[in-house]
Amino acid sequence: PPTLEDNISDMQRVMRGLRAVTPDSLEPSYDHPELIKVLPAVLRESDWKITLLLLHGRRQEEPDRIIDVEAGDTTARLYGLAVDIGTTTCSGVLIDLNSGKVIAEASAYNAQIRYGEDVISRIIYAGRPGGLRTLQNKVVATINAIIEDICRTMIISPADISYIMASGNTVMSHLLLGLDPKYIRESPYVPSVSQFPLTKAAGLGIQAHPSVRLFLYPCISSYVGGDIVAGVHAAQIAKSELVTLFIDIGTNGEIVVGNKDWMVSAACSAGPAFEGGGIKYGMRAANGAIENFYIHPVTYDPMLITIGRIKPSGICGSGLISVVAELLDSGVIDQQGKFNRNLDQPRIRDGRDGWEYVLAWSQDSLIGEDIVITEVDIDNMMRAKGAMYAGYQTLLESVGLTFADLERVILAGNFGAFIDLEQAIRIGLLPDMDREQFYYLGNGSLLGCQISLSDVRRFRERVQVRQLITNMELSENPEFMSHYMAALFLPHTDMSLFPSVRDRLADRN
Amino acid sequence: PPTLEDNISDMQRVMRGLRAVTPDSLEPSYDHPELIKVLPAVLRESDWKITLLLLHGRRQEEPDRIIDVEAGDTTARLYGLAVDIGTTTCSGVLIDLNSGKVIAEASAYNAQIRYGEDVISRIIYAGRPGGLRTLQNKVVATINAIIEDICRTMIISPADISYIMASGNTVMSHLLLGLDPKYIRESPYVPSVSQFPLTKAAGLGIQAHPSVRLFLYPCISSYVGGDIVAGVHAAQIAKSELVTLFIDIGTNGEIVVGNKDWMVSAACSAGPAFEGGGIKYGMRAANGAIENFYIHPVTYDPMLITIGRIKPSGICGSGLISVVAELLDSGVIDQQGKFNRNLDQPRIRDGRDGWEYVLAWSQDSLIGEDIVITEVDIDNMMRAKGAMYAGYQTLLESVGLTFADLERVILAGNFGAFIDLEQAIRIGLLPDMDREQFYYLGNGSLLGCQISLSDVRRFRERVQVRQLITNMELSENPEFMSHYMAALFLPHTDMSLFPSVRDRLADRN
Repeated sequence: PPTLEDNISDMQRVMRGLRAVTPDSLEPSYDHPELIKVLPAVLRESDWKITLLLLHGRRQEEPDRIIDVEAGDTTARLYGLAVDIGTTTCSGVLIDLNSGKVIAEASAYNAQIRYGEDVISRIIYAGRPGGLRTLQNKVVATINAIIEDICRTMIISPADISYIMASGNTVMSHLLLGLDPKYIRESPYVPSVSQFPLTKAAGLGIQAHPSVRLFLYPCISSYVGGDIVAGVHAAQIAKSELVTLFIDIGTNGEIVVGNKDWMVSAACSAGPAFEGGGIKYGMRAANGAIENFYIHPVTYDPMLITIGRIKPSGICGSGLISVVAELLDSGVIDQQGKFNRNLDQPRIRDGRDGWEYVLAWSQDSLIGEDIVITEVDIDNMMRAKGAMYAGYQTLLESVGLTFADLERVILAGNFGAFIDLEQAIRIGLLPDMDREQFYYLGNGSLLGCQISLSDVRRFRERVQVRQLITNMELSENPEFMSHYMAALFLPHTDMSLFPSVRDRLADRN
Repeated sequence: PPTLEDNISDMQRVMRGLRAVTPDSLEPSYDHPELIKVLPAVLRESDWKITLLLLHGRRQEEPDRIIDVEAGDTTARLYGLAVDIGTTTCSGVLIDLNSGKVIAEASAYNAQIRYGEDVISRIIYAGRPGGLRTLQNKVVATINAIIEDICRTMIISPADISYIMASGNTVMSHLLLGLDPKYIRESPYVPSVSQFPLTKAAGLGIQAHPSVRLFLYPCISSYVGGDIVAGVHAAQIAKSELVTLFIDIGTNGEIVVGNKDWMVSAACSAGPAFEGGGIKYGMRAANGAIENFYIHPVTYDPMLITIGRIKPSGICGSGLISVVAELLDSGVIDQQGKFNRNLDQPRIRDGRDGWEYVLAWSQDSLIGEDIVITEVDIDNMMRAKGAMYAGYQTLLESVGLTFADLERVILAGNFGAFIDLEQAIRIGLLPDMDREQFYYLGNGSLLGCQISLSDVRRFRERVQVRQLITNMELSENPEFMSHYMAALFLPHTDMSLFPSVRDRLADRN
């Protein structure tokens, strides 16, 4: 407490106390006006014993910032929230910042979804009067729902959350901050910012203490977003010597190649096939979706495995890979994805939309109609996987490498977690490498947010990771186009790239 | 403009452009969310030619901050506003930041004045329900009035003002930011903060572009405020070898002693005599105030000079000094401030409040009654000047110096500008030094703000100046008390401190 001999200002006293504890740090700043309004009262009501919440600078040489002051010792109640802002689903994880442990999780559909399923339709909606505001409000409401859910479970108050670390693709990040995503969609595809500013969560409408900052992972380009940076960060590629291929498969497939010394990234517009789009009976990975498929090599009868083990209602992305891989393996389709018209099996028929294979007869399906896969579906799937594969090739060549130089493949994203490796390689979605070199990361976006909250070195790394990555634009790249054309085959026109598949197909014949 | 080969984000493009112009600077930050919302549109509407407004960091090693972006080249319209927030009067000066020239001025009474004349009554009012908010609103309204006045004169828009640099005493600074000044008044006199945070002017309600920051000079203690730091800065004491005494005379007299290597400061509660308080016919320096006075050495008749050269209505601070100095010089009062009861002059009489001298008979006064100066008035004046002088002495002794070591005296403040040096020394308000060593600074608070805006080195200096100053608390200091008692004499009980006055009084007798 101050005396007449020592009557420096309350804030100076706080700074002096802080200096005594952390003598090597720069004096922190405190540009948060509410803080100094409450400081005198907090100091006096707590008998001059307070807990400060410090925010580390983005660079090591920057001073910390005092973002909150609490009476007494509140260090035991220190939580951080990691949030993955997905186009479809948002997921949150509450972390005890003292132990680094995950103590609660929640997720919810992104409430923006009724304004468009994918980022392009969201961008279009954002261009309508009031649209941007609506989309921003919806994603904020989604985050609030996650916070409420977690706080209800853990019996804590939203005010106990001290940091929010979020990541999302470039469009989701723009919408959360209320930035117009318009130019992301128009060539030459320029985002407003890639390094998002530190924002007060409450300022966006998020239920949080007024001092709580929301951090957003920086994005790389319009179509390689903060979710990818977070994933690359989570996979710790920037710490490894191993030349790694990082893949996030989706409507926009994102690819990163590199190691601790360099990284290149690209997005390829794979189309929505792996998310069930453009596929006649395509659907999201929900109950009733065919996720795995086996075909009898002689009778060509199917064996279906659905999510929830109920009657099938459609095909999800991993099911699509499985179906095409098995149809190819059994010779029902050829390497061009065309049906063998000479097989004696009623499931193989010339239907309304051309040749197709009946996965489930109407009486066996949940939707009361035949569930089929058509040549058009297979064609769409081939375009999607071809774009991904051409992306790997183009990126590798851009740095003078080939698949032989790759030492590791990391599959990120929810979709990656459900892929059957053999089948994905067999159709040419993944490179034909030693299966031991493949790793599943899971939700890399959320994991990145989590590790960023785990300690301050990790916290700063996220910016370094971003700066290590150089982006490459594939959309009008001639090498990409020629690789893409060559990849419109099962698995590929250049079978030397797929030796294990070549051998398998040779054995079969 | 971006191309497919070069489609970094808009903000990265801006940063790259900036790097090309200022290759040696750190990359600036931009934590102003509105900025990135407007950036894409501004870039495109201006055909990718923009003007950035950068804010320099407080420390040299901190990166700049981008605070505004304007289409086209707007560097010609770049104005800064310097504002002195006085307890009584607020003054503003508009500066062309390109040339550094003052281009307009305006001032207005601080609209807080109806809630109390001095800082103590403002603190008390701030403690009433809603009082703090009211006082904050009033000073903001005053600043807005100044801005409107200046903008009307100069035909510019408030949005063209890019920086606001303000200074005021500690209470005024707290009230402007909405900080409770309560503890400033209670021993041990602790302000909430001394280094005020950077604040968005618009956030306080000031008519300014949303990105405009308001800077407030840091204060030293509860009673040595940012106005003094600004004055010391304006006087460039921190650049000089000369040991300087800096004085701002007022209800709270502020004193700084030092040079470029060290400075000590103190406030002494002189009482309101120099502002007309506690003086029977005391008044502020307004029309009708006696500001100068001569007495006929034989008849003891007065010659009055009033502000506005009209009939007298009272005595202002400089008039009070003049009256007491002349009464002493002529022998109407003695060195204890007591009237010579033996003089044959009807103006010297035993009145309702004890002995007094009639400065103006009722028929010659504006207020229709005799204007007098009483022994009580003189006593109050002696306490005020005694406190100031004891302050100089105590501060000098605290660093092992005497008046003989002083090389310069700088008189700051409006009051200082109207003081007659000889008379002020004769009554013991100022030390008896070579008259050539005295300098008048004028409104040092406003001048400091002006030079802070003049260039970035000066801008940063203000924090360094603050850090050079060590404050000393006089209120219960025993040395101060004994010096004070010794100073309750005209000019002083120790006449060796006032050799020129001693000689003059000796000549007279």
